Amino acid sequence: MNVVYCLYLFYVDNALLLMINLVLVLVLPKYRISWKTCKDRIEKIKEHLVEKDAKAMLLTSGLSIFYLTNFHHITTERPAALVVPAEGPLAFMGPLLEIDHLKHQTHLVPRVFTYLDYPGLVHPIDNFSKWMEELNLDTGKILADNPRGATGASGYVGPSLAEKLPNTSFESVGRYFYDLRLKKSEEEIALMRESAKWGNLAHRYLQDFTAPGLWDAEVSLMASLEATSIMKKALGPNFELFKGGRAAGAGFRGQVGWKSAMPHCVSINREIELGDVLVTGAGSSIGGYGSELERTMIVGVPSAKQRKLFEVMVKSQEASIEKLAPGNTCAEVDKASRKVVIDAGYESLLRHHTGHGIGLQGHEPPYLDIGNPEVLEAGMVVTIEPGIYELGYAGFRHSDTAVITEDGCELITYYPRDIDSLTII
Amino acid sequence: MNVVYCLYLFYVDNALLLMINLVLVLVLPKYRISWKTCKDRIEKIKEHLVEKDAKAMLLTSGLSIFYLTNFHHITTERPAALVVPAEGPLAFMGPLLEIDHLKHQTHLVPRVFTYLDYPGLVHPIDNFSKWMEELNLDTGKILADNPRGATGASGYVGPSLAEKLPNTSFESVGRYFYDLRLKKSEEEIALMRESAKWGNLAHRYLQDFTAPGLWDAEVSLMASLEATSIMKKALGPNFELFKGGRAAGAGFRGQVGWKSAMPHCVSINREIELGDVLVTGAGSSIGGYGSELERTMIVGVPSAKQRKLFEVMVKSQEASIEKLAPGNTCAEVDKASRKVVIDAGYESLLRHHTGHGIGLQGHEPPYLDIGNPEVLEAGMVVTIEPGIYELGYAGFRHSDTAVITEDGCELITYYPRDIDSLTII
Repeated sequence: MNVVYCLYLFYVDNALLLMINLVLVLVLPKYRISWKTCKDRIEKIKEHLVEKDAKAMLLTSGLSIFYLTNFHHITTERPAALVVPAEGPLAFMGPLLEIDHLKHQTHLVPRVFTYLDYPGLVHPIDNFSKWMEELNLDTGKILADNPRGATGASGYVGPSLAEKLPNTSFESVGRYFYDLRLKKSEEEIALMRESAKWGNLAHRYLQDFTAPGLWDAEVSLMASLEATSIMKKALGPNFELFKGGRAAGAGFRGQVGWKSAMPHCVSINREIELGDVLVTGAGSSIGGYGSELERTMIVGVPSAKQRKLFEVMVKSQEASIEKLAPGNTCAEVDKASRKVVIDAGYESLLRHHTGHGIGLQGHEPPYLDIGNPEVLEAGMVVTIEPGIYELGYAGFRHSDTAVITEDGCELITYYPRDIDSLTII
Repeated sequence: MNVVYCLYLFYVDNALLLMINLVLVLVLPKYRISWKTCKDRIEKIKEHLVEKDAKAMLLTSGLSIFYLTNFHHITTERPAALVVPAEGPLAFMGPLLEIDHLKHQTHLVPRVFTYLDYPGLVHPIDNFSKWMEELNLDTGKILADNPRGATGASGYVGPSLAEKLPNTSFESVGRYFYDLRLKKSEEEIALMRESAKWGNLAHRYLQDFTAPGLWDAEVSLMASLEATSIMKKALGPNFELFKGGRAAGAGFRGQVGWKSAMPHCVSINREIELGDVLVTGAGSSIGGYGSELERTMIVGVPSAKQRKLFEVMVKSQEASIEKLAPGNTCAEVDKASRKVVIDAGYESLLRHHTGHGIGLQGHEPPYLDIGNPEVLEAGMVVTIEPGIYELGYAGFRHSDTAVITEDGCELITYYPRDIDSLTII
């Protein structure tokens, strides 16, 4: 079926393109969401459209387009949108520089409308409005993540597509995609487990290479190079970095020494020193899915104070992991980790909640927060990362990725958590 | 003055924080926009507010906040906004995990309102609305880049701040910041020149390390490691990576062999091979400013066809560079490079326009496009990167960063452009 479809689709192009594409689309790479799942996702959207009595869905979010088609594009000022009609084939409206790329990355979008570039002799949105007419979508209801028809990035200026189509009513898709993505399938979890494996390797190198006198950026690039290189050699052509970024990587993001006390620190302008507390991060991108592994490491023999704060943090994480089970609320998980910190007398060192959902995005629902009454369900995947931070001294945080199972949870990250294993001497 | 201000500002915290901050804010690092310029930028906003008869500006764009304060934060689901009142000191409303970070990165935001985390026991936007009242901004006109008061990233759900403040009228800032940033000052251009220098080093290593049998990601990480490591050692504590990302880096982003024909390709699942055409990219981030350097490299002795397409591309770039002068329109520049390609018979190989503005963002106005009548002015900085792409074969593109001067342009990237220098044997 797929073969016939591809033959049909690319016959108009040339034979080389066809052969390359057949290999690419049908055989390689393996580490991605299956085409069957993509089709199921599209079917679900179509059912939703029928329920909502809408004629189509218009998507400008690169992530939502990727979710349905395995096609990732770099979002720029150039308007680009996927149209999922309630009936019939998908259509992409976008800049010329994405069209060959789209055709090679997916076979699920047979209709393509394109313009040369932005702003162009004719504004892309004027073209979009014409193409929506051609698609018979200039009347009726459209669900859209952005009625402008463009993300509006990088100083883009243009009219709204909604204005151009006065007889079409646009309704927001709202949280719909986040709801769809909230519980992960076995297929998605398998990709995240694979991601955790290569993140673990990157972290191993990060720890092995860390030493006083080196810059954090150096250690990070050394570890990322080793892990990425081995990952590429191990997986070969079965692996492609669908969503861009680093295949496997690890680093500190500036959380070195006194700056480890700033959870969203960006960088530091000094080398790693003896006595530093380091907060790390590692992961890899498999079929667009990620995992999160973070550890607190200590350079040199830990002081009594470092041991004490480290221990409280580990206990706090353990307490929240115990609460990870279907039926418990996100608030209960956060409360459990908070309780350990508060009982130890460190409430003033809290800077954030316990964790967040993870999958196609690094942060996504559900949020493990005292104010969130959402109930955990099997298939949700979250990070567990309570931390404590003493300004001017250091910060302490481990992060693990956990899948909620039928009767509890499974940690898919497995790097050692104890202080002895994380001490660099 | 600054010293007194910092003493005032941090006296309430502790002595250690004060000392660290004094060093950080007043002495180091050097490779950033000066505090005087930040203050001038803020003054300009205040004048604009008076002109517009508005009481304040509300900014949720991390980039705009950075532009005014040198404080960069990682934008997440957690609402965060900077308030610039027409009179009086700046205020930041945001999550607790950013507050210590903000205080250490800038001294220009003396008022801070914070909440523990999202969604929280009280929704952040309810807090924002209360704080806006305290700031006397619950009536009158506010210019805002987002009346929701939050970027809405990562599955965030919340009411709009505009709804919560029914007696305040919100008006869009529109293109205002892009207009402000359109012409670069000497100070900004100096940072971009510094960026081009380290991008050049990264590209040198990229070329030196490129060889058949290696994965593009490996070569990229090797080059980025060398360049970043040397840059950190050379600049020392004078350099801090304000905006995150890589200090200095170079890579291919998948534009290897037949995939070089896809300008916004993301990755490829095979090694570099003899005969490949490669399209590269290199740069570095200095005080948040970037530069763009891209080259077409050929692995092995170039074929006659490769030479021909390479030559057309270089001539096309030269033709557009000749048009880079104040008074010429963006359209004229694009037309000049197009003409060379069309005259050579390759119009069907065009996939995008000639270039775009660059500065704090990789892509920003003005866009060098046949449909853009904007007139070039001294101080604008643009990339010049016409390309030609034959599907199934290869793509050819160089990109250089050019500053428009009083009587023409200055190229701040200077890596060799000729085929002999870019051949890897």
